[in-house]
Amino acid sequence: MKNYAVIVAGGSGSRMQTAQPKQFLELEGRPVLMHTLDAFANCDLEMHIILVLPEDHIATWQDLVKQHTYKTRHQVTTGGSTRFDSVKNGLGVIDESGIVAIHDGARPLISAEVIQRTVSQAQKTGSGIAAVQMKDSIRQLINGQNKAVDRSQFYTIQTPQTFKVNLIKTAFENSKSNAFTDDASVLEANGVQVNLVEGSYDNLKITTPEDLVIAASILKRRK
Amino acid sequence: MKNYAVIVAGGSGSRMQTAQPKQFLELEGRPVLMHTLDAFANCDLEMHIILVLPEDHIATWQDLVKQHTYKTRHQVTTGGSTRFDSVKNGLGVIDESGIVAIHDGARPLISAEVIQRTVSQAQKTGSGIAAVQMKDSIRQLINGQNKAVDRSQFYTIQTPQTFKVNLIKTAFENSKSNAFTDDASVLEANGVQVNLVEGSYDNLKITTPEDLVIAASILKRRK
Repeated sequence: MKNYAVIVAGGSGSRMQTAQPKQFLELEGRPVLMHTLDAFANCDLEMHIILVLPEDHIATWQDLVKQHTYKTRHQVTTGGSTRFDSVKNGLGVIDESGIVAIHDGARPLISAEVIQRTVSQAQKTGSGIAAVQMKDSIRQLINGQNKAVDRSQFYTIQTPQTFKVNLIKTAFENSKSNAFTDDASVLEANGVQVNLVEGSYDNLKITTPEDLVIAASILKRRK
Repeated sequence: MKNYAVIVAGGSGSRMQTAQPKQFLELEGRPVLMHTLDAFANCDLEMHIILVLPEDHIATWQDLVKQHTYKTRHQVTTGGSTRFDSVKNGLGVIDESGIVAIHDGARPLISAEVIQRTVSQAQKTGSGIAAVQMKDSIRQLINGQNKAVDRSQFYTIQTPQTFKVNLIKTAFENSKSNAFTDDASVLEANGVQVNLVEGSYDNLKITTPEDLVIAASILKRRK
């Protein structure tokens, strides 16, 4: 069975207050996105990597690839107007059965271990979603009143969100909404229960300038 | 009405993998805890500051105060075996009515604005709890099955958690459990609805080595 990675890099730089989209910013000398792609290329699963980019970022990416003489094999495809549409376009490139790991381009610190764990679970049960248990006290707002809730019941969802290709493609095709913020919810809306596996607190998503500082610190610690 | 701040600094350094408890670690040249105390001392509310420390950390703190010729006025009292017991000891020092802001010693980046917001709300309604809306996708585990939940209903709870002194003292005295992870829940368990106010995503709690790096980065940005 073939393994695919669909890396979605659609975000603008608005929260970073930079002109560059966050996935192109430098992290330890290379764009964030190159770290992300390499995590999949180096994880021993012979992944076919599909990178989904907004149309007007493709030229920038190609320049960066030349500038860094970046050799990691990957296929580029054009994103849509929402995350849902971008993932759907990425899945559209796949015409075989197999396993697909859908991952945020802005999560460059993903480990081979977590990728492998989501893939194994998806092979067994159809889906493997990286998630970590919540560490903060939380409250829920119901009818204007807030109540303490038991945080041990709650998980923060990360990526990769990994699936059997046929399952997730069917869910995207059947979906009547494109307002989903994650792929597991698309499958769930199609009536299929999803399965969580242990992610990692290190697997952060770069959204603010501080996140880049943390990411650099974690990479240094790993070396 | 008098304003009090009870700063609870009970945590060990276990998650930091350091011998020093996290609140004594250096952040931009000074122990974390000095930043925290100064945020309250400098917020224009004439706060009487009560610092709650585990018995075996008091000598270390006194050494640090000398070493840094630290002048901010504060009263030190001894903590208990749980967070609940430490806060209760801190509240025990207060024998007047007024407003008390209970705050984690390991949150040194708290702004005057957020402190003021919790105090104003507590003056009006009895309680003002700093909280921020959740940014991540989350799932809830119910009977072994996980379900997507609407994150817009959920808030991550921070400190200060600020109260009318009589309300929160009564709640701590009436409480039959000491297993609470936050003070708002102690009040709620005593039958009183709590009120949230907007905290700040910058108001992080130092628990890992990366958190110290982020905190330093935020402090530099502020300057």
